[in-house]
Amino acid sequence: MLEEMESTAGQVLTRWADLSEQERVEAFEHLPRKEADTFFLELSSRDELELLLALPVRERRIWLRLLAPDDAADVIQIAPEDQRASLLDLLDDMARREVNALLAYKEDEAGGLMSPRFARLRPEMTVDEAIRYLRRQAAQIETVYYAYVLDDSQRLLGVLNFRDLFAADGNTLVRELMRTDFVSATDEMDQEAVARLFSMHRLLAIPVLDSEGRMQGIVTADDIVDVVHEEATEDIQKFGGMEALDGPYLEIGFWQMVRKRAGWLAILFLGEMLTATAMGHFEHEIARAVVLALFVPLIISSGGNSGSQATTLVIRAMAVGEVRLRDWWRIIGREAPTGLVLGSVLALIGGARILLWQAVWQPYGEHYFLVALTVGLSLIGVVLFGSLAGSMLPFVLRRVGLDPASASAPFVATMVDVTGLVIYFTIASFILRGTLL
Amino acid sequence: MLEEMESTAGQVLTRWADLSEQERVEAFEHLPRKEADTFFLELSSRDELELLLALPVRERRIWLRLLAPDDAADVIQIAPEDQRASLLDLLDDMARREVNALLAYKEDEAGGLMSPRFARLRPEMTVDEAIRYLRRQAAQIETVYYAYVLDDSQRLLGVLNFRDLFAADGNTLVRELMRTDFVSATDEMDQEAVARLFSMHRLLAIPVLDSEGRMQGIVTADDIVDVVHEEATEDIQKFGGMEALDGPYLEIGFWQMVRKRAGWLAILFLGEMLTATAMGHFEHEIARAVVLALFVPLIISSGGNSGSQATTLVIRAMAVGEVRLRDWWRIIGREAPTGLVLGSVLALIGGARILLWQAVWQPYGEHYFLVALTVGLSLIGVVLFGSLAGSMLPFVLRRVGLDPASASAPFVATMVDVTGLVIYFTIASFILRGTLL
Repeated sequence: MLEEMESTAGQVLTRWADLSEQERVEAFEHLPRKEADTFFLELSSRDELELLLALPVRERRIWLRLLAPDDAADVIQIAPEDQRASLLDLLDDMARREVNALLAYKEDEAGGLMSPRFARLRPEMTVDEAIRYLRRQAAQIETVYYAYVLDDSQRLLGVLNFRDLFAADGNTLVRELMRTDFVSATDEMDQEAVARLFSMHRLLAIPVLDSEGRMQGIVTADDIVDVVHEEATEDIQKFGGMEALDGPYLEIGFWQMVRKRAGWLAILFLGEMLTATAMGHFEHEIARAVVLALFVPLIISSGGNSGSQATTLVIRAMAVGEVRLRDWWRIIGREAPTGLVLGSVLALIGGARILLWQAVWQPYGEHYFLVALTVGLSLIGVVLFGSLAGSMLPFVLRRVGLDPASASAPFVATMVDVTGLVIYFTIASFILRGTLL
Repeated sequence: MLEEMESTAGQVLTRWADLSEQERVEAFEHLPRKEADTFFLELSSRDELELLLALPVRERRIWLRLLAPDDAADVIQIAPEDQRASLLDLLDDMARREVNALLAYKEDEAGGLMSPRFARLRPEMTVDEAIRYLRRQAAQIETVYYAYVLDDSQRLLGVLNFRDLFAADGNTLVRELMRTDFVSATDEMDQEAVARLFSMHRLLAIPVLDSEGRMQGIVTADDIVDVVHEEATEDIQKFGGMEALDGPYLEIGFWQMVRKRAGWLAILFLGEMLTATAMGHFEHEIARAVVLALFVPLIISSGGNSGSQATTLVIRAMAVGEVRLRDWWRIIGREAPTGLVLGSVLALIGGARILLWQAVWQPYGEHYFLVALTVGLSLIGVVLFGSLAGSMLPFVLRRVGLDPASASAPFVATMVDVTGLVIYFTIASFILRGTLL
């Protein structure tokens, strides 16, 4: 009884990540056939591949053939080079042709996401004929909510949703009912652009056309949910100051992980070396007024934090299409006053902190007020600079054709650190000249 | 002719963001009626509301009634308090009841996302009857790819997709064809959890049940694409070290923006003040060996950057469900060696930089080698600490019931800055005792 309970698909799925390959095969083979179908279809492509390769060769065929052509293509795409041909051979002729066509596309293009099995109609059919025809086609297609009306050369004439089809009188012609102002994607469109189409038009599926307008397949919203997740993960990892990983954190190899992180870390380090140069430039001032050194981390990190906020906001707004290249002056118009106010808030807190400490412990000497003034003014300058630099860098990067997301928060922080030091010591040398300096 | 060209829906949509309210109303009223319908439905809820309120009262009714109940509820939810009742009054009785029911849910719950208009079937219908019945229902429902089989008390018995319905023999009973192992959401489930269901099961719609199993509506994948976008934006903004904004960057009011950013910036600033305390603690050492101060920004920022990488990876892996609470020791097992290797890489670069500068300009005095050693070892220690602290903090936060995403990169950087100073000056006092110190 207990065993029966434990072998339901849901429970196996919950424990899946913790099972060894051998345990996975056993758990999978213990599932009742109907549950095993559902279970297999819900695995990620990576898990499907691993399970397939772990199964005896004669069983692979059954499971691989269960997959729709686009899903089969996903699995074969990530298979080791030397396994691909033998996996392809397991498919029937029609599916193999379809999968081969899909494999020609890059994984992150509309063509790589689409399913070639969609519901086709002819413009001259009546609604009754169309419904009868769809019922006959149903077994072979990944039917979704739309049917596509094609001419003789497979060019897309119009799109018809099932609701309109169902609600119409049986004698109406498909031609009269179809919508001709449909949204479509091209087969080489980037998946992020396709995701934007979905988000903008709230559709459940979008037809994919080749450069001559011939219909190649459909991309469905459920695939796009994954795409949006993936793209967000990549963006977030770039924000964190590294290259995007190619897979889940716990599955990436150790050295691959190190490589993805070491590159940016070393670049940031080389940039940050300029702080040592800048500090060296002011070594004299530091030697004469050690108190100045105490506030270096406080000041440069405040610039970094405000820059990180600004760059995060702008990059994300660009990614979702809220902000375009020519909006740069509107951003400056917001960031300049924002930076001034934020800097002033920190200046007040920082000034109060210095005066308070001085009142209690007198750590800053007789010129404590000038020190507080220096720190306060520097904070305003540094936060203002951070907000402006952080918000403008994505525009500069995009202008020269680079990915704005690479202007990650740590990158901006490094840039602002160096400038922050210069701002701080310049203000100090004006205010403290004749007293501490 | 030119005017006609410019008045197509797509072109109006492209210019929409740049138009004044008056221009928007004019452009909208110039669209042919059929295009205007599509156009209105594709606007965001916020734009729909603004346009509605800008239109003359007698026209509002037409456009508000065009919306499906869930979309109408979204618009009314964001309307100013004093406009809601009058907008609700524009709906017909049935729609008003439905919208009122939806307004009872929070915006970010399954109940707040769902549409109450889904295709219902009875278990004892035949396939032919079901298809005829769906054709009659079609005009009133937001038909999607699934039909839902309910008992007399509206409890969900099974789910049937159109493909299986279409492909089956006309005399089969719905009861025999329906799937009873369906995936469902509860009406109070968080939208992020609903998005995970979609991503896991690759569905186009998920039924929403109340606590007694009665079916309340469906959430469709196109709505989830928006949810995933929104949630990613919120996460990214938290990563950037601020509270998530409630709307697009350019539309948020100035003081609201300042408030959302000033809070975290001030908290980070208060934390970073500890660096001034820590530096004060080592004031003596700095006064004796100013050369130590030169490398402070370099060392603490390297710790911050590696911490930012680690925390970003772990938070995202948690958000998408790749990593669970009990995986913490597996993460330590990866981050400890990763941190050591990354720290060593930076130590080599940093050491080489000091030796090179010394060879050319001799800026670091006779004990330059000990300085290089101090900086190198500190880098290893700080990067290791950054990787561990950055990766563990999300676990600690989640353990005590807080949102792991609030352990944003700047937060970790601040934490690591303070510790980094202590590590650096402690190592320095060991290595440089008797020479510089």
